[in-house]
This record gives sequence, C-alpha cells and structure tokens, in this order.
Amino acid sequence: MGLIVHKYGGTSVADLEKIENVARKVIRTKEAGNEVVVVLSAMAGETDRLIALAQKAAEDPDPREFDSLISTGEQVTVTLLAMVLNRLGYRAKSFLGTQVKVHTDQAFKKARIVRIDEKVLKHELKKGTICIVAGFQGVDEEGNITTLGRGGSDTSAVALAAALRADACDIYTDVDGVYTTDPNICPQAKRLAKISYDEMLEMARAGAKVLQPRSVEMAKKYNVPVYVKSTFTDEGGTLVTKEDKDMEKEVVSGVTYDRDQAKFTVVRVPDRPGIAARLFTPLADKNIVVDMIIQNASVEGFTDLSFTVSRKEVKTAREIVEKAAREVGSERVEVDENVSKISIVGVGMISHSGVAAKMFATLAREGINIEMISTSEIKISCVVHAKYTELAVMALHEAFQLEQRS
Amino acid sequence: MGLIVHKYGGTSVADLEKIENVARKVIRTKEAGNEVVVVLSAMAGETDRLIALAQKAAEDPDPREFDSLISTGEQVTVTLLAMVLNRLGYRAKSFLGTQVKVHTDQAFKKARIVRIDEKVLKHELKKGTICIVAGFQGVDEEGNITTLGRGGSDTSAVALAAALRADACDIYTDVDGVYTTDPNICPQAKRLAKISYDEMLEMARAGAKVLQPRSVEMAKKYNVPVYVKSTFTDEGGTLVTKEDKDMEKEVVSGVTYDRDQAKFTVVRVPDRPGIAARLFTPLADKNIVVDMIIQNASVEGFTDLSFTVSRKEVKTAREIVEKAAREVGSERVEVDENVSKISIVGVGMISHSGVAAKMFATLAREGINIEMISTSEIKISCVVHAKYTELAVMALHEAFQLEQRS
Repeated sequence: MGLIVHKYGGTSVADLEKIENVARKVIRTKEAGNEVVVVLSAMAGETDRLIALAQKAAEDPDPREFDSLISTGEQVTVTLLAMVLNRLGYRAKSFLGTQVKVHTDQAFKKARIVRIDEKVLKHELKKGTICIVAGFQGVDEEGNITTLGRGGSDTSAVALAAALRADACDIYTDVDGVYTTDPNICPQAKRLAKISYDEMLEMARAGAKVLQPRSVEMAKKYNVPVYVKSTFTDEGGTLVTKEDKDMEKEVVSGVTYDRDQAKFTVVRVPDRPGIAARLFTPLADKNIVVDMIIQNASVEGFTDLSFTVSRKEVKTAREIVEKAAREVGSERVEVDENVSKISIVGVGMISHSGVAAKMFATLAREGINIEMISTSEIKISCVVHAKYTELAVMALHEAFQLEQRS
Repeated sequence: MGLIVHKYGGTSVADLEKIENVARKVIRTKEAGNEVVVVLSAMAGETDRLIALAQKAAEDPDPREFDSLISTGEQVTVTLLAMVLNRLGYRAKSFLGTQVKVHTDQAFKKARIVRIDEKVLKHELKKGTICIVAGFQGVDEEGNITTLGRGGSDTSAVALAAALRADACDIYTDVDGVYTTDPNICPQAKRLAKISYDEMLEMARAGAKVLQPRSVEMAKKYNVPVYVKSTFTDEGGTLVTKEDKDMEKEVVSGVTYDRDQAKFTVVRVPDRPGIAARLFTPLADKNIVVDMIIQNASVEGFTDLSFTVSRKEVKTAREIVEKAAREVGSERVEVDENVSKISIVGVGMISHSGVAAKMFATLAREGINIEMISTSEIKISCVVHAKYTELAVMALHEAFQLEQRS
C-alpha cells in the first residue's frame, strides 16, 4: 500500500506486445492497492531513428528543434500504454513533460530538472488514475520542450518519485539487478541484493550501464529507495539505498570497465602555473568531459600531462589540444584510442588499507601494464591497454572474491 | 511585402528532400520581403502508421490519448523544417498547437478551433523569424492535445491567416490549382484562375479533395484570400476569394463526383410526424453524417425514405437503421453500395434557369438513370450507379462547355 513509481526502458516498450507486458506489471502493482506512476522511454531504436533524421536535416541541428523532435518518441509510448490500460478497464492518462509539468533549465539536449509540479498528478492519483509520464523530457520557462540527455528517463523517474514522496522507485530494465561486474564478460558475476547510493554512483560513472549517474545522485539527494528489476522476470532485483552497517563490511562491491576511453598525452609541457587551465578551458568550452587527469613529476622544468576523454570526442578534442599545446610550448601530443578503464568500487575501502596495492598486484600478476591511475574515496581506476579489459575484470573479480557476494 | 501563410500537405513533406524543397519556397517568399508563417502536415503515410499503432493498442482507442499520439506526426515535420532553415542561415522556430496556442474545444479527433493566440507569433515575426506551426493540432483549456480531424491542416492554416490578419494563405499541394473537374478522369478539365468561397465549399463538400470544407468556411467567414498552388511547380494556381461580377457570368464552374457513397432506402414507412427523427437521431448520436435525404410522395399513408452515408459507415449505419425501421413499422431496409454522387456547382445558377433540366437531359442522353436528386442554391447533385461515374462527369463537363473555362 503506497505510491510506487515504475520506470520502463526502451527494450521494455519496444513493441505493442512488450507494452502489453508492461501493462500487466503495472496492473499487478495497482491491484495490490498502490497508487502508480509509470515513466516510459521511447521504443528501442526510435530515438536513434529520430536523431538520424535530424542529422539528415542539419549536421549540427538546432538544439531547441532537436529536443522537440526527439521528445516525440516518449509521446508515442506513453499514449499507447494509456490506451492499453484503458482498454483493460483501468483509468489511465498520459502526461508529457509539458503537461506534468517537469520544469527544467534551458540547456537543450542535457537539461536539468529544476522542479516538478506534483499537483496534477496527485489529483489524478487520488481519483485512482494510473499516471503515465513521458520520461527524458521537460519544459523550460518559455514553454520550449527540453530533453535530459541519454538515459534521462531514469532521472525523470527518480525526480518524480522525489517530488511525489513515493515509497519506492522501481527501475525495470533488461537485467534483473546490479551485478558485481558485467555477467557478459565474467560468468562468475553475482547480483547484489543491496548497494549504497555512493557505490552505485561510482559504478555508473565508471561504466556500469544499469542506471544513469544523475538519477543516482538525485536518489541519494532525496533519499529515494530505488529498485533495479527485470521487466521480463519477477526474480531478483537490487535495492539502491542509504549506506548501512552491512555494506561497510564489504571492501569491494563491484568491478567495472569502460571501453569508451581515449588517452591524450601532452609531452614536455613547461611546468608553469596556469598551463593546465590553458589546456582544459577550451575543452570545457566545447562541453568535452575530461575524465582522468594525471600530471607526472616535473623533470628539469618540464612535465608530461595525460588525460582521458570519451572516444567519440577524439576528433574535436585533438584539434583543441594540439592548438593549445603549441601555444604553451609543449613538444607534441600523443593520442591512444586503444585504452580501457578498469575500476573497483566499494564503500569499505575507506576503512581498509591495502586495497589499491592488491589491485595493482593482481594486474601485475597477469602481466597487465597500468598506464594511468586515479582514486576516489570509494573507487580506484586504472587505465590499461584495451586488449586486457576482460582479463583485468576477471582477475580482479576473483582476487576480491566477488563471486561469494550476494 | 506582407504577411503570408504557407501550408504544405503530407506529400510535400514526405521526406527530407521534399522538406528541402519546401525550405526553398519559404525562403523565396521571405527574401521577397514578407513575413512568413508555415503550416505543415505530417509526412505522407505517418498519420496512418500512427493510427494503425493505436488500433493495435485498442480497437477503440481512448480519444485523448489518440490525439496526443497522432499529433507527433506534425511535430516531426515542423522541427525538421526549422532545422533545415536554421542550417541555411534563416531564423526559424517550430511551434506546436500547445505552444502557439491554438485553442480548441474538447471534441478529441475532430476539435474545432475556438481562438488562436497570435501574440507569440507576432513577436517572433517582428524579429524576422520564420514561424513553422504544426497543423491539425490544438490544445483544449485543460492543456490536453486535440486534433482537428482529417485535412485539419488546411483549417489550421486559414485560421492562422485569419488570426494574424495575413495578406494571403497559400495552400501548397500536389495539384496546381482547382480544376473544373478531376483531370484524372477528364483530360479536358481546365484549371480555374479564380473561384468563389461558396463554389469552393460546395465543390469540396461534393467530393473535390483539394481543400477541406471547414477551411473554406473559415476563409469565407474571415475573408482570407486562399491560393491553391503546386509544391512542385511555380506555374498555375487558383485564387479562392469573394464572389465578383465575373464569376456570376459563369453558370457552372465545376463538376465533381464522390464515390464514397452508400444509399439506404427504408421501404414503406408509415407517413406520420416524427418518423424521420426516429430514424436519424440514432445515426447522429453515433456521429454518422447523413448526406442526401429524399422522401417520396406518400401513397396510401406509406412512403419510401432514402438517404446516403459514407461507405465506411455502412456497417454501423445498417444496424442502427434496421433497428429503427422495425420500431417505426417499415417493411424493410435496402442498402446499395454501388452508387456515386455527381454534382455541378456554380454561382451563376442562381440567376440562370434551365440548369437542372440541362443536367438531367445530359445524363438521360447517356442512358444514365438518376436515383436521387438534391439541390442547393449553387449546386445540383444526382446519385447514379457507380459504374456511370466517369461517363457522367465527362458528359456534364462537355455539356456545360467547361473546357472553355480559364
């Protein structure tokens, strides 16, 4: 008995049969006596189809128009689910971002939710209506349609759960929970029954694709219990929640990898104040996210500076960095696209020593050279040659005995 | 120099190449020093695709959800055209029915426009923006998306032209104007340079598909000059406008036909007051439009009552009529789906006698039996067997010397 938010991704609403299946899951939750809000993504492939259309219209399409175009994908799925539920005898109503309303800033293509009006939905829920909300989209203060960026529907769901003070937010996807690592490359991977917001956030940022990092940030901020569940089975599930005593006992909760990495090295940079700013400001201006940054110790007034960016950004980044490198008097720029980032994540790291040493030793034993290292309180990441990705994941999974987790 | 509304139908925006062509036409009008508002339909076939999806979701889909679903078709085309124009260096912005706003009543699937806010568009036009408005859609007072029914984009365009006090409304379509009859079945058909609102209205109602009747009504009401032009050539065009002296000289302006007709005859109905109401009220309740109604003279207290409906409605209409016919004590109901309605239209008819006689004589000379007749001030319609459609059109076109019109 409570207010439950369900969210279904693109593969869960890929066609009308799948939407019927979603309807059955929604009805079960409704019949159990809950108020239900459902957040949907577009049909799998539809957003890509619309993006391709936009890119045929203009290489760099106007962002306001782009958002209005791609928001139609969710408009289709929410209306279809409402039709199915109505046909089955349930009161159901679809709501677009402009109708809820989901207020965002005006950063088209990656807008941030500012505030959600909960009045209309509260009113409909009280009447027993199943409210179906288009994920991924919002409206700015001028009434323009905005979108939240890839994976934005997770964020929509958590934000709605927070605004409505929902009892839970169930994220239905094609896997049945959060795993110690990707089961596709490591068959020993174990599903976690529970994981803390911080760990989930680090894992999402480090490459685990099950939840969008912004949705986890928001869940943590508003303390929304998030369940990751499978659309296609009733088994399993992982609860993403506040840290508790049990969790702290576990040193490492997961191993992640991210192949979408490219390493830049600016060789022999004069070691003077302000150099880093001159390299990274123009990248930030072009919205290129720099992930790891490493600066070696200075030798004779020169240093080498390495960093990673998404492989998709290499072309743009190279032009910017080469120009900046010339200006600051660096010798040359090297770019390596054959790298992968391997990370271990766990809240227990804070109170356990030797975790990093164990990671490095494990990789060394497998003959894997570490090219870059970065650490946070609950994460250690190493950049290695891409060919070692699977080997590194499996070795670390075994070394930290993750197959024994549950 | 003025404010011009362009409207392009589904075949004119069927793909990105066609949308580029539309952009060129819009730019030409803009470069001539005009303010331009463009109204678009969905890509040809897209609305049908969405309707098929809806009917897979529910046999009789919820109308609110239905309208929200199918309105995405225009959302796609308006954003793509805006992207193309922006790429070509022109300020352009798309507007949905909910953004303009186009206020309608709440009759989903066939909403009527109540009022259009012209402020936002006026403001943008003043800045030099080409405003691209999604046709066919509006918003009710609760913020629900509504649609205007088939061909509604013509109505959107004329209503916008009226609200903005535009100097002209150009309806671009796949033919280059309004013809004396359908050139596909009568090669002698001539394009009319000018036609009056009333004639256009009767022709549209009588089966000419070039303009939606409601758009013509609205053009007449607000005195909006409408030009019907071809998207694909710069030649030709027909001006739909107020009646003038020249027009009155022409007895007949056009011959139309409508194959989408089915004739019902209720045989031996007791000739008592209230019978017609008992037959037609239940049809109206189901939104079935009855076109021609003929009641024969009463013989011995009984009469035959005939009427036509759209062929698509036959199944539903037959159930209703058979039930009502039993209740009023009629002998039986006959349904003939092999009929066609042939009409001649012309403002000059009012002051010329013998037009009807000439029509009947022409049909008789060709051996065509007339099954029903109805007349208005400027139109005479005859229902004939469907197999005579082309013969009747060609004979009447010749008899009234329409090949000499220009």
